[in-house]
Amino acid sequence: MPQACLVNGQSHTTIELADRGLQYGDGLFTTIAIQQGQALFWEAHMQRLQSGCQRLNLVPPNLSLLQHESQFLLDKLAQTSVNDAVLKILITRGQGGRGYCPPQRRHNTRILSLYPWPEYPLAYWHAGIETILCRTQLAINPSLAGIKHLNRLENVLASHECAQHNVAEGILCDSHGMPVCGTKSNLFLRCGENLITPALDHCGVAGVLRDVIIRLAGELGIKVMLGTVGRAQLLAANEVFLTNSIIGLWPVKKIDQTNYQVGALTRKLMSELFTRFGFNSMKRMLCAD
Amino acid sequence: MPQACLVNGQSHTTIELADRGLQYGDGLFTTIAIQQGQALFWEAHMQRLQSGCQRLNLVPPNLSLLQHESQFLLDKLAQTSVNDAVLKILITRGQGGRGYCPPQRRHNTRILSLYPWPEYPLAYWHAGIETILCRTQLAINPSLAGIKHLNRLENVLASHECAQHNVAEGILCDSHGMPVCGTKSNLFLRCGENLITPALDHCGVAGVLRDVIIRLAGELGIKVMLGTVGRAQLLAANEVFLTNSIIGLWPVKKIDQTNYQVGALTRKLMSELFTRFGFNSMKRMLCAD
Repeated sequence: MPQACLVNGQSHTTIELADRGLQYGDGLFTTIAIQQGQALFWEAHMQRLQSGCQRLNLVPPNLSLLQHESQFLLDKLAQTSVNDAVLKILITRGQGGRGYCPPQRRHNTRILSLYPWPEYPLAYWHAGIETILCRTQLAINPSLAGIKHLNRLENVLASHECAQHNVAEGILCDSHGMPVCGTKSNLFLRCGENLITPALDHCGVAGVLRDVIIRLAGELGIKVMLGTVGRAQLLAANEVFLTNSIIGLWPVKKIDQTNYQVGALTRKLMSELFTRFGFNSMKRMLCAD
Repeated sequence: MPQACLVNGQSHTTIELADRGLQYGDGLFTTIAIQQGQALFWEAHMQRLQSGCQRLNLVPPNLSLLQHESQFLLDKLAQTSVNDAVLKILITRGQGGRGYCPPQRRHNTRILSLYPWPEYPLAYWHAGIETILCRTQLAINPSLAGIKHLNRLENVLASHECAQHNVAEGILCDSHGMPVCGTKSNLFLRCGENLITPALDHCGVAGVLRDVIIRLAGELGIKVMLGTVGRAQLLAANEVFLTNSIIGLWPVKKIDQTNYQVGALTRKLMSELFTRFGFNSMKRMLCAD
């Protein structure tokens, strides 16, 4: 349950039934790590919200308003003894329109919610996680690919598979059987000298942390390739890890029956990530000061 | 805007922000025609809700409760001078769970909303409608195909195309370019002696009216084939029509630049549909008494 919420700037915990976010999943969202009271990668999250709105023909949100409202929630957080949280910003197409057809007068609903920082076992970062290749597939849809939109039933069904297999995360393949991403994360693999991450022009969500890792790897002189990843290629990879804005980076130690070492590149990227970019709680947990 | 709503049996016009229906489109719905105070095809709608819940691993709703709550709304309608309305029943996975992962304790939210009967030009039934083949494609996803779930961004984007082209409806193709359905309707075509409707095992919504038409055609001795429909086959068809629970049946007189006659089979099915099944307002409008 969220600790504090704002709907169009007002303290509400509810939304109108007629909102198109509920009726059709007509909107998008982003999930931001709050570490020691600071929003990490704020500008990248805002940029992704803006470009997602553009692709869905939603009015782009007023960024200074979003910043002001986020600060209001962070100020509330500062009054408690808690410093870490998750800020979720959700933008819907609001109410109106005839059935599926969007209203001519465009008017979004913006929802900001502050959630407790999720607790995961420390071993997920140190020893890595066990995963499965999910049976649920990602449908191929270039119009929606990359957008963190509200149509997330595939992720829900795949997460249910993970719970049934008692694993922390699952890897989703597209309908051609090609691995694309985790249920809540992006996928990277090292094959020899190269770091590879699946292209997201057919399906999947373009994570903010994915871009951070691509940039970080570049700065460290590691070549990153974006493209189609085959299942055999994934299973034969030297190292595999998953990323998102909240966990940062989890090494993968197992996919179904295939085991992986947590390699030097994975450890290097994790350490750099947590040291450079304000993941202070994680740095304390994982890295020597 | 809905005229009256019930959320889990209470008169509310709002829903909790934390509801998974809003957060992930984690749920489904059905839209029922109310004609002269009576719900049309109630049992078929309930059956589709039940089977959709089963496929999404949602607790099936208590049908006698749904009937009781629907009757409450219809009784309110009866107190007005209005006899026709649209009843939308929406079932979500409720609140809880960790991110995308559904909660172990399964507890739905059920939302019943009564909307005004939509007004469309009479010519849509008499002369037929102009349509387009939408650029937005339906992604292929057997796990979700056929279910009237809440992930409807494809329909939203396609409906926006229809508005831009000023047409009443658009026809959606799957990502292989095969015509599947309308943005809010199912597709039928007559090719020679046969009535054909696309199979819905890859994508699309299995409409209640689609089943009614298939059964009705069978009773009239018309062979109905379910399968893949090619674009060329659609454009070469002798008759084309679209169906849903609210409009009943609209003949198609144009798809992009291709014109169609409103043929005898279309008129026969429309007349039988409105005469047999309680579409009383439509019967008054369209059929000789």
